[in-house]
Amino acid sequence: MSKPKYAIGVDFGTESGRAALVDVADGWVLASAVHPYTNGVIDEKLPGTDIRLEPDWALQDPNDYLEVFKRAIPAVLKESGVDPTDVIGIGVDFTACTMLPTKADGTPLCFLPEFRQNPNAWVKLWKHHAAQPEANLLNERARASGFGEILDRYGGKISSEWFFPKAWQILDEAPDVYAAADRLIEGADWVVWQLTGVETRNSCTAGYKAMWSKTDGFPPNAFFKALDPRLEHIVDEKMSRNILPLGAKAGGLTAEAAGWTGLLPGTAVAVANVDAHVAVPAATVTEPGRMVIIMGTSNCHMVLGAQEVTVPGMCGVVQDGIIAGLPGFEAGQSCVGDHFAWFVENCVPAAYEREAEGRKLNVHELLEEKAAKLKPGESGLLALDWWNGNRSVLVDVDLTGMLLGATLLTRPEEIYRALIEATAYGTRMIIETFKASGVPVHEIIATGGLPNRNRLLMQIYADVCGIPIYVAEAEQIGALGSAMHGAVAAGEEAGGYDDITQATKKMARLRKEHYEPNTAHSTVYNLLYSEYATLHDYFGRGANDVMKRLKVLKAEMRK
Amino acid sequence: MSKPKYAIGVDFGTESGRAALVDVADGWVLASAVHPYTNGVIDEKLPGTDIRLEPDWALQDPNDYLEVFKRAIPAVLKESGVDPTDVIGIGVDFTACTMLPTKADGTPLCFLPEFRQNPNAWVKLWKHHAAQPEANLLNERARASGFGEILDRYGGKISSEWFFPKAWQILDEAPDVYAAADRLIEGADWVVWQLTGVETRNSCTAGYKAMWSKTDGFPPNAFFKALDPRLEHIVDEKMSRNILPLGAKAGGLTAEAAGWTGLLPGTAVAVANVDAHVAVPAATVTEPGRMVIIMGTSNCHMVLGAQEVTVPGMCGVVQDGIIAGLPGFEAGQSCVGDHFAWFVENCVPAAYEREAEGRKLNVHELLEEKAAKLKPGESGLLALDWWNGNRSVLVDVDLTGMLLGATLLTRPEEIYRALIEATAYGTRMIIETFKASGVPVHEIIATGGLPNRNRLLMQIYADVCGIPIYVAEAEQIGALGSAMHGAVAAGEEAGGYDDITQATKKMARLRKEHYEPNTAHSTVYNLLYSEYATLHDYFGRGANDVMKRLKVLKAEMRK
Repeated sequence: MSKPKYAIGVDFGTESGRAALVDVADGWVLASAVHPYTNGVIDEKLPGTDIRLEPDWALQDPNDYLEVFKRAIPAVLKESGVDPTDVIGIGVDFTACTMLPTKADGTPLCFLPEFRQNPNAWVKLWKHHAAQPEANLLNERARASGFGEILDRYGGKISSEWFFPKAWQILDEAPDVYAAADRLIEGADWVVWQLTGVETRNSCTAGYKAMWSKTDGFPPNAFFKALDPRLEHIVDEKMSRNILPLGAKAGGLTAEAAGWTGLLPGTAVAVANVDAHVAVPAATVTEPGRMVIIMGTSNCHMVLGAQEVTVPGMCGVVQDGIIAGLPGFEAGQSCVGDHFAWFVENCVPAAYEREAEGRKLNVHELLEEKAAKLKPGESGLLALDWWNGNRSVLVDVDLTGMLLGATLLTRPEEIYRALIEATAYGTRMIIETFKASGVPVHEIIATGGLPNRNRLLMQIYADVCGIPIYVAEAEQIGALGSAMHGAVAAGEEAGGYDDITQATKKMARLRKEHYEPNTAHSTVYNLLYSEYATLHDYFGRGANDVMKRLKVLKAEMRK
Repeated sequence: MSKPKYAIGVDFGTESGRAALVDVADGWVLASAVHPYTNGVIDEKLPGTDIRLEPDWALQDPNDYLEVFKRAIPAVLKESGVDPTDVIGIGVDFTACTMLPTKADGTPLCFLPEFRQNPNAWVKLWKHHAAQPEANLLNERARASGFGEILDRYGGKISSEWFFPKAWQILDEAPDVYAAADRLIEGADWVVWQLTGVETRNSCTAGYKAMWSKTDGFPPNAFFKALDPRLEHIVDEKMSRNILPLGAKAGGLTAEAAGWTGLLPGTAVAVANVDAHVAVPAATVTEPGRMVIIMGTSNCHMVLGAQEVTVPGMCGVVQDGIIAGLPGFEAGQSCVGDHFAWFVENCVPAAYEREAEGRKLNVHELLEEKAAKLKPGESGLLALDWWNGNRSVLVDVDLTGMLLGATLLTRPEEIYRALIEATAYGTRMIIETFKASGVPVHEIIATGGLPNRNRLLMQIYADVCGIPIYVAEAEQIGALGSAMHGAVAAGEEAGGYDDITQATKKMARLRKEHYEPNTAHSTVYNLLYSEYATLHDYFGRGANDVMKRLKVLKAEMRK
């Protein structure tokens, strides 16, 4: 037997970064360590200044990312006792689109004294929403200039969270920063650059966040010119057309990065990835048919297809976007765990809080226990899960939540269950839309926070969708997925793998327990789902735009 | 100046009876006294037996009504110090339809040992719902036999709460009781019979609860035969076709009743009335155009018309039903105060309960305070007020509540305000339906429990309906209205009045403070009301019967 080999995955989240040291042979996590970002999410004022940010801003400090390498990687080496010579590769995954302007050598503009006080020089985090005016203009001008078809690949609209609205905001508000930026780059690619000294761009963020496609590349320069003449050459001047597939090796660790981490110079570093997408192989999926859902505050649905097709209302389809060689499809629901948290905070009576306290449960557990005693259809309630708009398949942030069927005997646990069911109907709507467009889905693999906490929710999803749900074994799914990509970047000769499919077979696993649909429940849920679908279309597809009119009125009245 | 004269009103409610002694000159209440019914609402088992009642039953003991005369009238005489010779008349009002079977001399069958253990021999209270099978059959067979037009006068359907379904239930379940019943009579008329020794029937209960109309009388015998051949002669055999107008004198106090009450034999007793309807003149209304709304757990809307017209979806129109000489229209909303009570019990978080406690408010007051700070439209919420079905104008108990427009920032006080607004839209829908049918409404007079407790609600109703709302001065509005009818029964010569209009001018008053619509708010509410109306029709008039389908499914799943 050869000596065990290890890979390190680094998962950059919203508030912190996590490193995991993983056995390449079986995916076993020997050690993991979290390093919270010193400056966290910067949404009030710029660190070290009195410069206040507008409400929709959300920035980060790129130095915090480097600190993760300097703290968390040494920590897992120390905890595991693994010899750095046995670490064959590193992979990273990141939130996206999280982007920053840098000099040609990779120095972030916000590190330079002349730009330190300019908010547009800092990292724009994925949930920075202040580029909405640019997103609106982009959608308007692109369609007016005959580029509507490009938008249609992304559900008809580009979000303010994506790359080009954020880049355009820099140009609009801080043309000096834009002019000084030799590069505009995803945080994911920037951290890989810092490790390797080599600037690379990955197909996942390029495809899902920057409108790149394997066939057509980025939109043509004429597209950008139509938005703003100053943007015409943005790709050639500040980005790269050389997009690398996932699992490719970006380079080897520089001596400097080796010093930060305690690893050997030259250790293979994989091209960067996105946190959600790297979870797919870590959840055992490298082929079409099995959908991975990351269930947390929101739901992110990913599935591989056999060929690239247009699926109405999805977040995007990217060839090689999740697994090299296959189109990756992504969809989402904006409000899942957040929904239940809202309910517990705003709608649960004191008597329930007291009961939970007396029985040493949290309120969610108490509600789950009570709701689990109900049969499908027994409450008479039906909800539309749009408390935070609808991401897929309607792609409409102006839709709002609805609850129907209440009587004077309606109890809190009935509403709680109706909200869970509503999110399950939303997932089924996504699955049915995929299937109708020729993307099969016959099984769900769940990961994220909810599958570990809420068995009732898992069973309801299985019953509503009528297909089995498995749960990924790994708790640090992002870090595991990144480590798997690190092992692929190292290659088989170094003790890793030649492709992600091989790595997945060895390193990713499901739990034994899973959720089979209960046939009797599914029959009832088929009825309820068809009611949901009717209301979904009535309120969501223009028959009655009351939700949007109320939202306009609400905004006017709050002025 | 002549010596002051007094009248006594006795208001028979669901749990107790109240007497008020009133100055005939100005309506001033000198004394009032409540006597709770010993047997209250009988809905578990028959008093003094182990005989259990089915869930939908609600009975009363007629002896409890007599006890009110024996206790409450002496109490007000004593408290006021008024000489019985100065009491010129008595009036009563009652819940309806509250009916019982008696012998020809008025003895309730439940007083007889042979029927004491038979639930069908007791008083069926207005909220006794166990005659639903008979109500269903009545509606079905009446329409099938060509009597649909008669039903249409009552919104198309006769309720299980009304007289004939209750009478038919006695026949169905206890044919011996039915056979032994020489009379089937409203509790209202029965208590007047006990005071005077004279059996009378009043136009209000006959019209609103027993399908009588001044023009056509009761439905023809063929109608009853079509329901059940045994019912063919029910009116001739067990009721009376001699229906007296409100304010008429039924008779004078018998010596026995004089002994119970401490009043003089021969004191004028008015024909009976219904609690809601007697409130109309007590709220100063004796002419068309001003709608009286009793606002409490539910809303009851009454308005007088210039002529008898058919108004779709109303509870009924009865010539002389409220004020002699005019058609009285009635409508209702099933869920108003109950709605807010449900919300407070089921949907208000512990933090609010703690805040209310700390500030020595009740939760309603806290919610009202917070909700009052919101502007119309500011919450983005809209509700349909059907938590207990819809009484008017859809007449459909199978409709259910809906809330729309919720987001993750929605707060409890916003929902609370949306529920208040929904009941206001429901009232406006009733008013607009009246107006569209030629029954003008240009002002609201509110009475009942809510106007005293919830100023925000009153202002919202004024803003939503766009007309001023006044509040009746009297707190014991039923007892005052009954006393006014007592004064009319006594007549002008005895120191009373010749008609209810004169009595109203002298004895009924409004408070000085009232609620004018805020024009800016009304403009916003006009928009919101039109959204409400669209959803009202979509869910309530057959475009999408999802509420009914969910209710059917709910019933199946609970089996």
